[in-house]
Amino acid sequence: MIKTDILIIGAGPTGLFTVFEAGLLQLKCHLIDALPQPGGQCSEIYPKKPIYDIPGFPEILAGDLTRNLLEQGKQFEPGFTLGERAETIEKQDDGSFIVTTNKGTKHQAPVVAIAGGLGSFEPRKPLIDNVARYEDKGVEYIIKDPEFYRDKKVVISGGGDSALDWSIFLADVASEVTLIHRRNEFRGALDSVEKVRELTLLNKINLITPAEVVALKGKGKLESVTVQKEDESFELQTDHFVPLFGLSPKLGPIGDWGLEIEKNAIKVDNSKNYQTNIPGIFAIGDVNTYPEKLKLILCGFHEATLMCQAAYRIINPGKKYVLKYTTVSGVNGFDGTRKEAPKAVVQSIK
Amino acid sequence: MIKTDILIIGAGPTGLFTVFEAGLLQLKCHLIDALPQPGGQCSEIYPKKPIYDIPGFPEILAGDLTRNLLEQGKQFEPGFTLGERAETIEKQDDGSFIVTTNKGTKHQAPVVAIAGGLGSFEPRKPLIDNVARYEDKGVEYIIKDPEFYRDKKVVISGGGDSALDWSIFLADVASEVTLIHRRNEFRGALDSVEKVRELTLLNKINLITPAEVVALKGKGKLESVTVQKEDESFELQTDHFVPLFGLSPKLGPIGDWGLEIEKNAIKVDNSKNYQTNIPGIFAIGDVNTYPEKLKLILCGFHEATLMCQAAYRIINPGKKYVLKYTTVSGVNGFDGTRKEAPKAVVQSIK
Ligand SMILES: Cc1cc2nc3c(=O)[nH]c(=O)nc-3n(C[C@H](O)[C@H](O)[C@H](O)COP(=O)(O)OP(=O)(O)OC[C@H]3O[C@@H](n4cnc5c(N)ncnc54)[C@H](O)[C@@H]3O)c2cc1C
Ligand SMILES: Cc1cc2nc3c(=O)[nH]c(=O)nc-3n(C[C@H](O)[C@H](O)[C@H](O)COP(=O)(O)OP(=O)(O)OC[C@H]3O[C@@H](n4cnc5c(N)ncnc54)[C@H](O)[C@@H]3O)c2cc1C
Repeated sequence: MIKTDILIIGAGPTGLFTVFEAGLLQLKCHLIDALPQPGGQCSEIYPKKPIYDIPGFPEILAGDLTRNLLEQGKQFEPGFTLGERAETIEKQDDGSFIVTTNKGTKHQAPVVAIAGGLGSFEPRKPLIDNVARYEDKGVEYIIKDPEFYRDKKVVISGGGDSALDWSIFLADVASEVTLIHRRNEFRGALDSVEKVRELTLLNKINLITPAEVVALKGKGKLESVTVQKEDESFELQTDHFVPLFGLSPKLGPIGDWGLEIEKNAIKVDNSKNYQTNIPGIFAIGDVNTYPEKLKLILCGFHEATLMCQAAYRIINPGKKYVLKYTTVSGVNGFDGTRKEAPKAVVQSIK
Repeated sequence: MIKTDILIIGAGPTGLFTVFEAGLLQLKCHLIDALPQPGGQCSEIYPKKPIYDIPGFPEILAGDLTRNLLEQGKQFEPGFTLGERAETIEKQDDGSFIVTTNKGTKHQAPVVAIAGGLGSFEPRKPLIDNVARYEDKGVEYIIKDPEFYRDKKVVISGGGDSALDWSIFLADVASEVTLIHRRNEFRGALDSVEKVRELTLLNKINLITPAEVVALKGKGKLESVTVQKEDESFELQTDHFVPLFGLSPKLGPIGDWGLEIEKNAIKVDNSKNYQTNIPGIFAIGDVNTYPEKLKLILCGFHEATLMCQAAYRIINPGKKYVLKYTTVSGVNGFDGTRKEAPKAVVQSIK
């Protein structure tokens, strides 16, 4: 059982900044995310694109924002359960909550902050009848550890940056890489497209377009895929089939937690501190809704900050908290570090 | 008459970020500030100190934050009326407002956003009977343009960074600089204290401590000050007396505009968009209050953003606005510039 003060569901920008604001109040956070890396939409959908409306940054790449937020919170030593989806929540007699993931990991906290964005990112799956039978038996939708594919035969399918980038990367790792896409055109960074073209000429990538994987075969585990290329159809021996068709967010299991839902988002009380209809459970960032809500990163930062004050009162009943400016009081990390402004010098001149 | 879409009172971080958010909605802003420079508390009180809780900045100097915010908004060409205090507001028959400053400058806009922080910064004045008589006749509390003092005799009073820094600066401009402080100890950056010591040894600054200016003399304009140094008292010929005792914020005239005031701040509807009790007048940032309010910079950013949506609807009645991400739609400046993310390349590989 992982125990913490604030259990955050979703490690997007809102969840990550919560770690920092909670830390200022001496509260510890643990984050659960379905994705293998933190950053939410910023790292999954557009890490290399600039954002122009983060206050104080005339321009910042979404990936750099994620890195900065991780850096800003790191002295408060957040815990992470990555690559797992929060599935169920149970209220305990002592008022705390236990949240269990799809892989069975249990987390307990007096306060739960849902920062789930548009929902947990789930891979778009190919429309192949028996694909579910081979999941984790040769079929994967996300590449977590490229070493897993060392000296294996891999078929990658898809036409975007992920398919291009992983084909390039695995060309040096796997024994054989086949990239299959239903069009001749790819949609990705220019240099990735060029690189794939080059590796294809060098026979390090086996490129098949326009084509589709239409069937999977194998006893107990994947052994081959059937490829349909225009009018022709053929078998391809392989250890792995990795369809990279993108991820689409789904509110998913959180929808069944008894929370008031409106427009596929969780209703909160924005006149106070973004609490849901269940005391102790808050919803912040893109996942919540209220009159005049804007799904913007900077709004999640404000919501997280107000929410932490309410969390403080739940966790420290009766204790009074007086807001202190970071500039004036500095930042005391849980790791023993301290950041503080240099003091003005008082010095005799004579 | 200066006309604009959103008239912002206060050019602190909240007011400055409003320029950007309004610009995204094609609304133009004009800012009034009592201080000679933008940045509010950040530039007036602690420009060289680090802030740790601006989201995405593990650390940023308050002065750099101000610069970044100016840079972020500059393509929306904000107007500025600096060094003037907004004094009166009158509602017009067409629903717009006219705001007049203490110097008589008039501004007209359909929406007024009060981002006045803790209030307009007013200098702390020395307790000398007839000081008011010499204001702008030899006595100034803020140095706006150092050239004003070229080849003049100047007496500066105070023991902080402003008094130190201006004494150093004017040593090369004025014909004579006297620095008077009631203690031997100064409270400022170490190198400023050292520099003053050095210039004193070179006779470029006439340092008198512990001492106080206790009387002012002159016909029509300032001609001399009376200095009390311990038990001794003497006259000092001078053209200017500049007491730099710091600025203290006062809500001031805004307190008489018919707005609901609570705890020296303006009550707003935080469940919607930070409108005051007078439709068309909003209050954002440190100047407003609502349940759970936190006087933090990041909260002002969120409030400004939601407020701009309401301003848009007032200014464009009946027109529907659909939120667009800056990353996706780019930023079109009023100065003809355009910022946009590089598009993904769609390219045939064969
Ligand atoms: C192309 C694009 C451009 C954009 N441009 C801008 C812009 O310019 N400015 C701007 O302000 N915003 C922009 N946005 C929106 C911005 O990315 C979102 O507002 C922001 O990511 C929301 O942050 P969040 O932390 O609330 O949620 P998210 O970033 O969506 O993160 C939520 C995380 O929660 C996880 N999660 C959800 N449910 C579960 C569960 N049950 N178990 C485990 N994990 C779960 C998800 O996997 C996800 O990682 C853009 C979005 C896109 C797609
Ligand atoms: C020492 C110190 C350290 C701080 N540290 C932090 C920190 O670490 N983190 C944080 O988030 N916040 C911190 N703050 C608070 C932060 O500076 C404020 O929250 C922020 O400046 C508020 O911004 P604002 O734009 O709302 O108002 P302000 O910065 O106060 O600006 C308001 C402006 O309005 C002008 N004005 C007011 N009335 C009038 C009028 N009638 N006519 C013309 N002009 C007018 C004023 O002159 C002023 O320039 C700190 C403050 C101080 C003093």
